[in-house]
Amino acid sequence: MSNELSWFFNPRSIAVVGASSKPGKIGHESLRSLLTSGFSGKIYPVNPRAEEILGLKAYPSLLDIPDEVDMAVITLPADAVPDVMTQCARRGVKAVVIISGGFGEAGPEGGRIEEEVVKIARENGIRIIGPNCIGVFDGHSRVDTSFQPVERMGRPGPGSVAFLSQSGTFGAAFLDWAAEDNLGVSKVVSLGNRCDVDEADLIEYLAEDPETEVIGVYMESFTRGRALFNSIRKCRKPIVIYKTSKTGESARAAVSHTGRIAARHEIAISALKQAGALTVDSFNELYAAVKALAKQPAAEKGVVMVTNGAGPCVMAADELVLRGVPLASLSSSTKGELVRILPPYVLVSDFVIDLTGSATSKDYTNAIEILSKADEVGIIGIFVVFQDSPLEDNFSEVLAGFDTKKPIVVFAAGGRYTRERRSILEKAGIPTYDDVREFASACLALWWASHCWRPE
Amino acid sequence: MSNELSWFFNPRSIAVVGASSKPGKIGHESLRSLLTSGFSGKIYPVNPRAEEILGLKAYPSLLDIPDEVDMAVITLPADAVPDVMTQCARRGVKAVVIISGGFGEAGPEGGRIEEEVVKIARENGIRIIGPNCIGVFDGHSRVDTSFQPVERMGRPGPGSVAFLSQSGTFGAAFLDWAAEDNLGVSKVVSLGNRCDVDEADLIEYLAEDPETEVIGVYMESFTRGRALFNSIRKCRKPIVIYKTSKTGESARAAVSHTGRIAARHEIAISALKQAGALTVDSFNELYAAVKALAKQPAAEKGVVMVTNGAGPCVMAADELVLRGVPLASLSSSTKGELVRILPPYVLVSDFVIDLTGSATSKDYTNAIEILSKADEVGIIGIFVVFQDSPLEDNFSEVLAGFDTKKPIVVFAAGGRYTRERRSILEKAGIPTYDDVREFASACLALWWASHCWRPE
Repeated sequence: MSNELSWFFNPRSIAVVGASSKPGKIGHESLRSLLTSGFSGKIYPVNPRAEEILGLKAYPSLLDIPDEVDMAVITLPADAVPDVMTQCARRGVKAVVIISGGFGEAGPEGGRIEEEVVKIARENGIRIIGPNCIGVFDGHSRVDTSFQPVERMGRPGPGSVAFLSQSGTFGAAFLDWAAEDNLGVSKVVSLGNRCDVDEADLIEYLAEDPETEVIGVYMESFTRGRALFNSIRKCRKPIVIYKTSKTGESARAAVSHTGRIAARHEIAISALKQAGALTVDSFNELYAAVKALAKQPAAEKGVVMVTNGAGPCVMAADELVLRGVPLASLSSSTKGELVRILPPYVLVSDFVIDLTGSATSKDYTNAIEILSKADEVGIIGIFVVFQDSPLEDNFSEVLAGFDTKKPIVVFAAGGRYTRERRSILEKAGIPTYDDVREFASACLALWWASHCWRPE
Repeated sequence: MSNELSWFFNPRSIAVVGASSKPGKIGHESLRSLLTSGFSGKIYPVNPRAEEILGLKAYPSLLDIPDEVDMAVITLPADAVPDVMTQCARRGVKAVVIISGGFGEAGPEGGRIEEEVVKIARENGIRIIGPNCIGVFDGHSRVDTSFQPVERMGRPGPGSVAFLSQSGTFGAAFLDWAAEDNLGVSKVVSLGNRCDVDEADLIEYLAEDPETEVIGVYMESFTRGRALFNSIRKCRKPIVIYKTSKTGESARAAVSHTGRIAARHEIAISALKQAGALTVDSFNELYAAVKALAKQPAAEKGVVMVTNGAGPCVMAADELVLRGVPLASLSSSTKGELVRILPPYVLVSDFVIDLTGSATSKDYTNAIEILSKADEVGIIGIFVVFQDSPLEDNFSEVLAGFDTKKPIVVFAAGGRYTRERRSILEKAGIPTYDDVREFASACLALWWASHCWRPE
C-alpha cells in the first residue's frame, strides 16, 4: 500500500487479541462489531482459553494464526501488551489498535509500559492507534473496532466525512449521530493517548484519501505542533477543529484523560487558524459544521432566513453576526417579487421572510424559488415550526424534492414529530439543527469554505 | 379572583372567536387543543357560518352565547378584531388572547388596529395576551389555546415551571421538550406583540402563584423597563432569562418579529442581573437551566464529575469555569475512599473520577455514594457513555433508584438508545443533556440558586 496507515483502514486480516466469549466484555464486543459491520477480510479471535468465539475458531496466541495478520486489535490489560507487541513484530503485523487503558494516562508505571510498547513498534515498523481509545471505524471497508454494540450505537454508511477524536466518547456520539442523520463517513478514528499515530499523520493520510472530502477534529492538546500545522496547511480539504483546554482546569482534566499536556489555548487556536483550519467552540458545533460541509455546497454570499415563526431568526441574527457570517440584504426587486407572490400578511425584511404561523408548504416553496435565483443570497436558512397546524404534513418531502441550487440549512426545534420530519430532510441531504448556535456554526462552515479557506 | 390575570389561567368559560370546522386552520386547532387538553370549563365556538364544530354548538357571535364568558380566544384577521373587542366589552369578558398576527408587527395600518384594540380593552377593564402569539398553556387547569395539534406537539403535565416567551416558536419548542422530559409546568405564555400583558405583569402574578416555583423567560426586547426590574426584584422565585438582540442585526429582526424595539443589550443584561435574574446565552441553555432548577435542589458547593468516558468532562471544565461555576476539589480522604473501593485502573483527580470504558453500574454507585457524603462536593455531574458495552442496560434504573442527597446532573450524547436511557432518568427527576454547554448551564443555575440569587 502507498501509505502504511492504510493498514488500519484496509487490512486483509485482523486479529482480536483478548477476544472474549462473554457478552459485554470489551474483547467480545470489538470482535462482534467487526463481524457484524460488513468487514470482508479475515478475522481471528485470540484467546488461550477458548476454542471458538462467536462462531470463529480462536487461537491461543498471535503466533498460532496460520495466515498473515495485517492488523491487531488489543483489548488486554496494559501489562500484557508489550508481549503481544513482540508477537506482532514476529508475525509482521503492520497496524495495531490498542483499546485498553492503563498506560500514560494512569501514571508513571503505565507511562513506562507505553514507552516500551512504542519502542517495540518503532523498531519493527508497526504503527499504533491508541492506547485508551475505541479505535477505527471505516465507513467503506467496514473495519469497526468499537466496543459499543450495534443495539446501543448506530453505524453510519459510507461517505466523505472523516472524524478524528482524542475522545472515544465524542467518537461514539459522532458515529451515533451520523448514523441517525444519514451522514456518510469515510474514516472515524478515536486516538486516545496518541502514543504513535496522531492527528498530523492522519490529516496527511486523509489529504490523499479519495474517500475523504471533509475532516472534523476534536482535540484537547497536541504533541507535534509543527507537523500538525504543516499537515493542515498542505491538506486541500476543509478541516474543522474543536479544541478544548481553554482554561487551566480543563487542561488539568485533559492530562488525566489522555496523559497529554495542553499548550496555551490562544496560541494553539491562532496557529490552527493560520494553518487554514476552521475552529469552532463546542463539540456540537463541530458536528454541525462538518455535517453542513458534507451535505451542502459552499456559500458565496450571506444568509437569508425563511420562517413560519421568527423568534429563532432573531437569535440566529445574533449568532451569525458574532461568528462573522454576513446576513443577506435583499434587493428591492427580490423583495418586490416576494411581496407579489406571497400572502399580504407575510413580512419581508432585509434578511428574514416571516411567512407567519399561517404558512403552507406552497408559501415556503414560492419564497425559496425566488431566493434561489437572487444573486444577493448565499445560504437559504429555513426555520420551520413543524408543529404549526397550517403547515402540511408533507412539507419535508416537498422541500426534499425541491432543487434550490443554493445551500440550504434547516432549523427546527421540537419533540418526536419534529425529529421525524427532520429525519426526512437529513435523508435527502439537507442538514437540520435544533439549536440556533449549531445552525449558525453550519452557516459559518459553508461561508468559510468559499471565503476564508483557500487551498493553493 | 385576587388578580385579574387569573382569568387567563382559570376561566370558567372560554369562547373561541373564529372557530373553524376545517382541520389545519388555526381556529380549528386552538379549539381542538382546549377540547383535548383536559380543560373542565365551558367552551363556546363562535362562527356565524357553522351550527356545530367538533361536537360543540357554535354561536354566530359572542353576543349570542347564553352564559357568562370569562375568556375569549380570537383567531380572526386583525381588521375584524376591534369589533370583537367591543362585543367582549358588552359581554363582560375579562381576558382576551389574540392569536392572529397582522397588527403592530405588520406595519402602520396594523399598528393603528392594535392601538384601537388596546383602547377598547383599557376602557373596559379587559386584559389582552398577544396579539401574534400562541397564547396560554396551563399545566394544572389545562387551558390550552395553542394551535399546534397534539399529534405534532406534546403537552407537559402539571408542575412548577412557568415559561414566558415573546416567541411562539420557542414556546412550542418548550412545551414539546417539557412533555418529553417529564418536566411539569404551571403556566406557559406566548406573549407575541405584548400590546397589554407583558413580562412585568406576569412575573408579578407568578410571584404569588402557588403553582409556580421556577420562572423562565425568553425575550427580544422590553417595554416597561422599570416595572420589569421591580417585578423581578420582588419575586422570591428563581427567574432565568435569555434575551436576544445582542447585535444591531438581531435588533432589526426583532422589530419585524413582534414590532418591538430592543434597548442596548449590555445595559439590559446588567439591569436584569442587578434585579436578581440569572441571564444565560441561548434558548437551549435557558431550557437546560430551568429544567435543572425544577428537578434538582440548589448546590452549595462545586461540581465533581464521574464518568466512563472523560472527553466531555474536559469540555465541561472549560464551560463551567467560563460561567463562574466552581469545580470541586476532592479532599485526600475522599480520594482515598474512592481509590479503596474502585478498581485499580480508575483515575481519581481533583474533580473528575474517570471510571474508564470498563465501568459498571456498581462502579458508578460506589463512587456516587462516597461523593454524596463528601462535604466538599456540591453537584454530582454524571457523564455516561450509555453505548459502552461493559455498562449494564439497567444503569438508568439503578441511578434513578439511588438517593444521593446532592443535586445530580447527567450528560449523555448519542442516538436512539441513549435517548431512551436518558428518558428513564428524566422520568425519575434527573435532568439530562447532550450538549456540554447545556450541562454547564444547568450547573450554573443550581449554583446560582444558592449563592448569587438572594431573595429577601
